[in-house]
Amino acid sequence: MFMRFLALVAVFVASALPAQAPSDIVAGAPAAEWVAIPADDLLVMDLKPAADGKARRIVIELMPAPFSPRHVANIRTLAAAHWWDGAAINRVQDNYVAQWGDPTGKKPLPANLRAVPASDYVVPFQALPTVAQPRWVWPDAYAKKVLFDRGWPLASDGRSVWPVHCYGMVGVGRDLAPDTGSGAELYAVIGQAPRHLDRNIALVGRVVEGMDYLSSLPRGTAEMGFYRDPGEQVPIASVRIASALPAAQQPRLEYLSTSAPSFARYVTARANRKDSFFVTPAGGLDICNVPVPVRVRKD
Amino acid sequence: MFMRFLALVAVFVASALPAQAPSDIVAGAPAAEWVAIPADDLLVMDLKPAADGKARRIVIELMPAPFSPRHVANIRTLAAAHWWDGAAINRVQDNYVAQWGDPTGKKPLPANLRAVPASDYVVPFQALPTVAQPRWVWPDAYAKKVLFDRGWPLASDGRSVWPVHCYGMVGVGRDLAPDTGSGAELYAVIGQAPRHLDRNIALVGRVVEGMDYLSSLPRGTAEMGFYRDPGEQVPIASVRIASALPAAQQPRLEYLSTSAPSFARYVTARANRKDSFFVTPAGGLDICNVPVPVRVRKD
Repeated sequence: MFMRFLALVAVFVASALPAQAPSDIVAGAPAAEWVAIPADDLLVMDLKPAADGKARRIVIELMPAPFSPRHVANIRTLAAAHWWDGAAINRVQDNYVAQWGDPTGKKPLPANLRAVPASDYVVPFQALPTVAQPRWVWPDAYAKKVLFDRGWPLASDGRSVWPVHCYGMVGVGRDLAPDTGSGAELYAVIGQAPRHLDRNIALVGRVVEGMDYLSSLPRGTAEMGFYRDPGEQVPIASVRIASALPAAQQPRLEYLSTSAPSFARYVTARANRKDSFFVTPAGGLDICNVPVPVRVRKD
Repeated sequence: MFMRFLALVAVFVASALPAQAPSDIVAGAPAAEWVAIPADDLLVMDLKPAADGKARRIVIELMPAPFSPRHVANIRTLAAAHWWDGAAINRVQDNYVAQWGDPTGKKPLPANLRAVPASDYVVPFQALPTVAQPRWVWPDAYAKKVLFDRGWPLASDGRSVWPVHCYGMVGVGRDLAPDTGSGAELYAVIGQAPRHLDRNIALVGRVVEGMDYLSSLPRGTAEMGFYRDPGEQVPIASVRIASALPAAQQPRLEYLSTSAPSFARYVTARANRKDSFFVTPAGGLDICNVPVPVRVRKD
């Protein structure tokens, strides 16, 4: 009863205060709620500088186990072999994906890449580490349940769990047979979440910096957004795991823990915008309309 | 009983045939299922040619009554006054919107624009024309019900109905007070559907051609994606209602009727992809993951 009374007081106090915008909640989150992203989990892709000479660096956080471990291992192998140096972005399809790899399809792959079966696209729910999840109360058209784990948007049918194709998520291109994706061809989502790809392609990461260098590229005019003329391709200077870069060049990033109280408040505020601009709070939220906050580390 | 038997036969035949991709269903839709978009409902925005001299034309279909009629009337007034000629795209925020209007904020508006209250953001359900709707069986995080009417994605709480902020939808920028949007500042959605804006801003149309000229623009680096330097703004050469253009310059477009059987099949196929690439059909669909097919008229 006392707990319930306290809860009521808390609700009363909250409703008497001016509503916080989601960005205010993120800005006010204590330092302890931010999680540093290890350099060893960051893939750093430097495109050739733009026409104006400006550097274009894209940083991708790789997914942790139990998600896509074999594809992620292949990506580490490819980066260590400098395999993408001189490769290119060769497909940009509007409201869908930007994709990169070897446009010739002829460059030999490192010998030690693993073949990965489609069974890797999902993992048993009990393989997830036990973490406090903000309770997700809104329905989803694609899955029984959606949730976040360690910064990653996930969906589940109750038994299995899988990453979802939100904006900025990075996946493994493949041919028709589901085990044909090595990790050498990667894509990033640049439009409305193509959730029909969930459980049909391996997701391996998400863009945490430099997303606009992918999303603002000219769209290809050939079928599926491929660049018609090889001269339109966007050359990749180098791709490295950040820990292989000199310390001063390693991105120092952190994300707001998705099991922290501030994240739960951020989600609730995004679902019920009452800050000054809003007339009618939505009362709901799509998991892909919740960008997980990422920022440069302050230490 | 006989109907039920026929239905079972139909299901059996359908499952014995190879699954059609959504694009095949659209390509096979009979001519009678396509609806011509009147030139009087198209807003044609020509940007100044790109650095390579190429034309950049964006075509926006304006919403029909009962949606946002006063804002749409204002937009017609602004176009007739050539008000946007010499205006510019001055804000491009990644995964959100591209916005245009008068960057100086000082250009006088035509005298006969109407003030529009927030009550125009929604309309009573019974104001919709009676049209056959494909039954939408998948849940939505933001509304009790989602549906299509005459090519437009809509949501409803059972009493009211309102357009939703899918990719490519065009809305009316405004200040904090809900009645401050005249129609002179417009934006198009270029990322994940910002559905929290539904019922909070007037939607007035959707981009039906040239979307990539908006979505691939460089993102602004000032707050909210505004271009920091006026030199980064993208100048608008002219904006006209298509019927005011010479006949040969009028876009001739048509969309797949959202009350036609082919559209229902297209939706069903998108929700249950079984064409050759797919391993696990989604079994569901988000309304903003259903681009309404638009093409150049064939007559």
